[in-house]
This record gives sequence, structure tokens and C-alpha cells, in this order.
Amino acid sequence: MLSLPPVLDHLDSNLDASLERLFALLRIPSISTDPAYAADCRRAGEWLVEDLRSIGFDASLRDTPGHPMVVAHHEGPSADSPHVLFYGHYDVQPVDPLELWTDGPFEPAIKEIEPGRKVITGRGSSDDKGQLMLFVEACRAYKKVNGQLPCRVTILFEGEEESGSPSLKPFLDANRDELKADFALVCDTGMWDGETPAITASLRGLVGEEITVRAANRDLHSGQYGGAAANPIRILAKILADVHDDTGRVTIPGFYDGVEETPSQILKSWETLGETAETMLGPIGLSELAGEKGRSAVELVWARPTAEFNGISGGYTGKGFKTVIAAEASAKVSFRLVHKQDPKKIRAAFRKFVEERIPADCSVSFHEHGGSPGIQLPYDAPFLSKAKAALSDEWPNPAIMTGGGGSIPVVGDFQTYLGMDSLLVGFALDDDRIHSPNEKYELTSFHKGQRSWARILDALAR
Amino acid sequence: MLSLPPVLDHLDSNLDASLERLFALLRIPSISTDPAYAADCRRAGEWLVEDLRSIGFDASLRDTPGHPMVVAHHEGPSADSPHVLFYGHYDVQPVDPLELWTDGPFEPAIKEIEPGRKVITGRGSSDDKGQLMLFVEACRAYKKVNGQLPCRVTILFEGEEESGSPSLKPFLDANRDELKADFALVCDTGMWDGETPAITASLRGLVGEEITVRAANRDLHSGQYGGAAANPIRILAKILADVHDDTGRVTIPGFYDGVEETPSQILKSWETLGETAETMLGPIGLSELAGEKGRSAVELVWARPTAEFNGISGGYTGKGFKTVIAAEASAKVSFRLVHKQDPKKIRAAFRKFVEERIPADCSVSFHEHGGSPGIQLPYDAPFLSKAKAALSDEWPNPAIMTGGGGSIPVVGDFQTYLGMDSLLVGFALDDDRIHSPNEKYELTSFHKGQRSWARILDALAR
Repeated sequence: MLSLPPVLDHLDSNLDASLERLFALLRIPSISTDPAYAADCRRAGEWLVEDLRSIGFDASLRDTPGHPMVVAHHEGPSADSPHVLFYGHYDVQPVDPLELWTDGPFEPAIKEIEPGRKVITGRGSSDDKGQLMLFVEACRAYKKVNGQLPCRVTILFEGEEESGSPSLKPFLDANRDELKADFALVCDTGMWDGETPAITASLRGLVGEEITVRAANRDLHSGQYGGAAANPIRILAKILADVHDDTGRVTIPGFYDGVEETPSQILKSWETLGETAETMLGPIGLSELAGEKGRSAVELVWARPTAEFNGISGGYTGKGFKTVIAAEASAKVSFRLVHKQDPKKIRAAFRKFVEERIPADCSVSFHEHGGSPGIQLPYDAPFLSKAKAALSDEWPNPAIMTGGGGSIPVVGDFQTYLGMDSLLVGFALDDDRIHSPNEKYELTSFHKGQRSWARILDALAR
Repeated sequence: MLSLPPVLDHLDSNLDASLERLFALLRIPSISTDPAYAADCRRAGEWLVEDLRSIGFDASLRDTPGHPMVVAHHEGPSADSPHVLFYGHYDVQPVDPLELWTDGPFEPAIKEIEPGRKVITGRGSSDDKGQLMLFVEACRAYKKVNGQLPCRVTILFEGEEESGSPSLKPFLDANRDELKADFALVCDTGMWDGETPAITASLRGLVGEEITVRAANRDLHSGQYGGAAANPIRILAKILADVHDDTGRVTIPGFYDGVEETPSQILKSWETLGETAETMLGPIGLSELAGEKGRSAVELVWARPTAEFNGISGGYTGKGFKTVIAAEASAKVSFRLVHKQDPKKIRAAFRKFVEERIPADCSVSFHEHGGSPGIQLPYDAPFLSKAKAALSDEWPNPAIMTGGGGSIPVVGDFQTYLGMDSLLVGFALDDDRIHSPNEKYELTSFHKGQRSWARILDALAR
């Protein structure tokens, strides 16, 4: 039987060496969105391939129309050992405005920001190089101590996550057999707080839709026609106002079909988190929950579907005033979906809802802006329980199950192309300043995160 | 007693000479909005001063910060004869796109566009040089035949009407005593059709208002906050949707205070005009009246107040989609007012209506975009009856009283600065293409319009 404790000891005694490896990767300015850094992106991929090969992975750099993918495989103790696909990304966000960085974004360092609290600074330290190296280090230590890994492991690191992942879907589609595993491990998330690890067990999906209401065949003078001719802004406002009732519930027929109530023990665990309307909304200058009445802030964002209006335009919107009745007005509308809501049905129901509110002499057109279902891990899945226990063993507080209000596209893509659930575990903190100057990663996250992944890999194999 | 018939005869026999004078004025490219034509504007004013002096007016060009005013006075038979102020404008719109003109815009000509139907072509032929010269010719003939004018006449021609009349208010304010008359004659309107003269007896006023609803202190990610945080587009849509009830009536408390029903004989006269929802809305691609139910198309536009939404914007309005909850959203709203509605009270009532619909943690700000009351001539005023009879004597069909859906600023200004009502009479037709290429004026309008003004002047003195 493989043994975990010496793996954890090995990680403890080799922390400095693991930091040196992370720093080497952080020094490579792999900004994916700027073509000037294309060679650096490739260099970061090559560095990872070399490092994974040194552990014993069968690793290779795989070209795409954009930046290359890193794919690596390692066998497990046997052919029927659990098989996981670990996903991360080696590309980083741009660093502007450079003058706001205390240190160079690609000159990583350790800083003690308060007594006893050290952080790793640099672009990518948290998003996502620091997070992905945790898993690499866990594998390295496990292999070193036990001569093998507890599971079959496939690794996929992409280099375009920060620029929309244009190559990911085609790559998954073209390499289904090679990349398919029992489930995916996705490391792009955070902890609840510095002492409480989290597993993201649900993510909301999205239906994006643009509607354009057309009335007269040209813009009209509001003196000449006001009171007689249809005004598309008035029609649009009425449609949007009808979408919610006075309790904040969405009124579109069938909208809540398939929506399940969150289990009460999960709701109870969320109540203990201390997140309230005040803590969630206070920092953004608000105080009142705007969604369905009678539900907590956390539940509204993690577990309830919504309708949001993301943009609206029509008529004269410049400076001053113009007495015009516009020929058309449009709105961008999105729905956040939870598990079992069907994006296609939601879109169709919304379109019907809109069409029913268009006067006979006016018209409406629709433009689709993407759709993806919500993700919900079965709360009682064994791999979830095992990971939860492993994380709870490592950290001061037990791990909690959280939800994500937005989608993480790769999770949907793994579901679509590889038929796999994803276990979302990460050790970032809310104040890591990802995408901003002075990005950092807690040294504790880097250390205990390695130990956490070693524990999870070990637990999944038992 | 002064005699009208020989005046009409004189106008008939001197039509060619009057056309030559109009052509001379039309050849001056007095485009007020383009500084390159400033000298031409002045030249048009000087031409009018000279012409009025030749009739016997005490005429002068009066400088303003913009283009000069023409002011002219002529005594009447006695010091207590009726005193009218005739208003017109000698400036014209730009002529782009030049390539769409069949003839040069400043090379006036007579064209026979169908057998027996001749028109005068050229920029300003209808708006407003042709219309103002009718009155000048009527005065010239009356003076020539009778040796005097039947009324005291003051003339005001401005040169900035097509560029917003920036100098008009200050000029009226500074010259109240000189310009004050019993009432004004304003010639900037049209006939009902080629055989039916019209007097515009009412004009709707306007309250313009911009509202901006603010929610969070920054734009939010709709995944992270959707369902919990207030969405200003949703709040704004609800406010706008609440402004009208299902019957098209405005719901703002007090909105209809002071609104009087149109006298039934006026409504009946409008019914005979043949203007219906079909004839009004068909040409703009619509068919259903959108205003208060149970009222005709004509009544809705001429005699009923409205609320219109002239512009709306908020969130992401570019191409594609952005999952944002905006920090703010705004709308430009206007109210068309009828006589006795108080613009200040309407604005205040609307602001209260909006504020009552703003959640406690959100805010709204207002920006005023002008306000003017509606205008309503007393249907039983003697000057109105006299003018109506005079017009009915001249044309195949009796004159009708119409309303104007929009405001004509000068009418409000005369009311405000000089305390005068305005009699709105003009002989333009809807198809005169004012402001567009190939502007024209019916030769019949030019001929019978001169005779009409002679009749009106004569009638007003009796």
C-alpha cells in the first residue's frame, strides 16, 4: 500500500525547492493575449513539459492554432486505478498599468505582509501558475516517496485561458479518447477564507439573448407622432418590467421547470459562513437583496436562477435632448441557470414571452449570445466526499461545499466533450488581486495546497 | 373706407413682378448654420429692408450676436387701429446633398409638375422666404391701391430660425416696447391640403427630463452578483413601464390636471378631415394607435398630452455580449403638454413618481431639458373668426382649425416676452420637401396666399 505521511513530510522539507521551480515559471512573461509574448507562452509550455518529464510523466507540447497545450500522462498502480484529468493554465493576464506594481510583475519574491504572513508576489502567482504547480509538486513528492502515483493522472495545461480559450473546444473534441478520465480536477478556484478550504459543487449556466423591438419604419418626431405611434422603448420597458414579479421571481412560464431546492443541510452549512446581504452588498454600496424574497444572499447567487438585463439602448442617447420616437430599441438579457434548467427551453420560453408582448404592428428580432447549462455535482458522490475529507484533514476548518454564481467554461466543455464531472478545488483568496497589479498568492496556500492535493490524490485511490 | 377688391385685382395683375422679387431673394444663399454664408445672410436681410422701405415701411437691419434681424413698422389708418406683428425668417437650411437637386438650390425656377400645376423650386421657396413674401406683397398691394395699410403693422424677420434662434429671446426681451402688438401673425405653417386653408389654433408644449438610476458603486459581474444586487436597468424599465396604464393613459398623479376636453364641434370638424389611424400611421409602417384608447389619431396628436421615451441607455450596448450588471442606467423622457398643464408641476410630479420607485439602496438624479407650456387660442376670439372667414372666402374649402403636435418656439417666446397670442397661418403643403433637396412651393400658394393675407389684414381692421 502506498503511504501518505512521508509524502507530506517530503513536501514540508522541500518547500524551498518547490518555490524555486514556481519562481522559474513565474519569470516567464506568458501573456497570451499579446502576440509579442507568443514565444514566452511557448517557453512556459516547454518548461512545464520538461518539469513533468523529470517526474516521469509522458509529457508533450501540442500545437494549436494559438498557443500550445501541455498534455502529460502518468500511469497508476494498476490499469483500473482511478483516472483523473487535472486542468490548469500557464498563460497570464497583461500587467498594465505597470506603474502600480510595487515589484516587477515577472520578478517573483516572497514578502512578509504582516507578522507571520508571507505571500508570493508576481503575475500568475495565484492565477494560475501557483495553483497548477501545487498539483505538480504533489505528484512529484508522491512519486519520489512511493515510486508511483496513487491514481492514473492526465494533465492538461492550456495557454489561452486569459484570452478566451479559442483552441480548447477543438482540442478536446479532437483528443477525446486521450483526455477522457473518470472526472476532472480543476484548480482555478479559491478557498472560502484563509483557514477554510472549499469545493465548488455547483456553477450557474447562462443563456444570453439580445432582443430588438422595431416599430415605425423610421425615427419619428415626437411632436408630430407622440401619442399616436408606437414607441419601441415603451414596449421594451414593459417587456423587461414584466420579467420579474413583485417578489423578485421570474414570471416567464416554465422558467423554474427542473429547479430543485438546495438540500437543507447544505443551506444550513451556508448559514454558518457569515455571508449576509450586508457583507456581500456593503462593499459595492448596496444593502438590499434584489432577488427572490425569502432566500439568503448566498443561496440567491449560488443556487437560484435569475434574469438580468445587461444592456439596453434605443433612441437618442447623446448629450442634450432630441424629441425623437425611435424606430427600434434593444436589450441584452441573460439568464443564470441552475442544474436541470434546459438552456434551449429557457430561450424558447423567453422568446415566446417577448413575442406575446409585441403589438400587432411592431416586430421583434432575437440574437442568440451563447447558452450553457448549470453544473451541479451530486452532493453524495464518493469522489466529492473523499476530497472533502482530505481537505478537512489538512486545514484548520472543515471543507465546505460552495456554489459559483458564474460559469467556468472549461467545466462545461469537459462535460460536453468528455462527459466528465469536474471537482473544483483551489487555494486562491479573494484578495489575491488576480488580473490586477501586485497579484499575490499566500505562502500558506502554496504549502498546504501541495499537501492538500497529495491528500486528495491519496484519498481518491482508496 | 379702404377697399379690398382692387387690392386683390392688383395682386392678380402683378403676380409676375412679385415672382421676380421672390426669385431675387431666393438667389441669396442665406444658410444660417454655416459661417461661410454669414455675408449672404446679411445680404438677404438688407434686401428685405430695402424692399420694405420701397413700400413705405420704416425698416432697419438690427445687429445681434448672430445674424441680423429685420424690423419694420408701418402706421395704420389711426393710432388705435389694430396692431399686428408679422413674423418670418429669411435664413434657410443647408442644401446637402447637392447632387439630389434637379436644379441649383439657389437658381429658382417655375416648373409645371403636372398639367395645370406649377411650382416654384429652390431652397427657401416654402421655408420660409416664399411664405413671408406673401405678406410683404399683400402689404405692397394694399398700400399701392389704398395709399395706406388697414392695420398698424410691425414686421420681424429673423435670420437664425434654422440654427436654433439663439438671438431671438434676448432680442424680444430687449425690444419689448417696440415689438409689442395686439397679436402676432406667424407664417411658418401649412395648409390642410391644396384646397383647404388651416389655422393652427393649438400647439403642444414640452417638458424634457433625463433620469439616471444608480445602483452599485461600480459595474458588477452578473455571475458573481446576479440575483442579489440591484440592477438599474430593471429599476428603470419598471419605472417607464409604470408611466402608462393598459389603456395608454399616463398614470403620473396630477398629470391630467387642467386638461380640458376639446369642444365637440371642433372634434366633429376634425372627423371630416379624413385623417385616420390608417392614413396617419400607414406611411410610417404602423397601423395601431398607441395612445389613450377611444380617441382619434388627430385628437391624440393635436389635443392630448403624452409621455414619450426618447432615449434609453445602460450597461453594455456594443457588439456581442458582456455579463455585466451596470452601475447606472438612464432615460430621456418627454411630455407633450396641452394648454393649462403646468410644465413645472408636471416635472415635479414625474420626479416624485420616479423617486417613489427607487429602492432604498439606490439613487436617482434628474437633468432638466427644457419646458414650455402648450398653446391654445380661444376658439371664440374675434381675430380668429375674422381670419377664418377671410381664408374661407379665398379658397375652395372653408378654413379649418387644426392643432400642432409639436411646439413652435417663437409662439411661446411671443407669449412669454411680449404677452401676445399668435395666429398661425401658412400655405405650405406637406410635400414641399422643406429641409430636403428639391424644395418647392405651389404657385397657387404663392398667388392665393398673397390674396389671403390681404383679406386677413382687411378683415382684422373691420
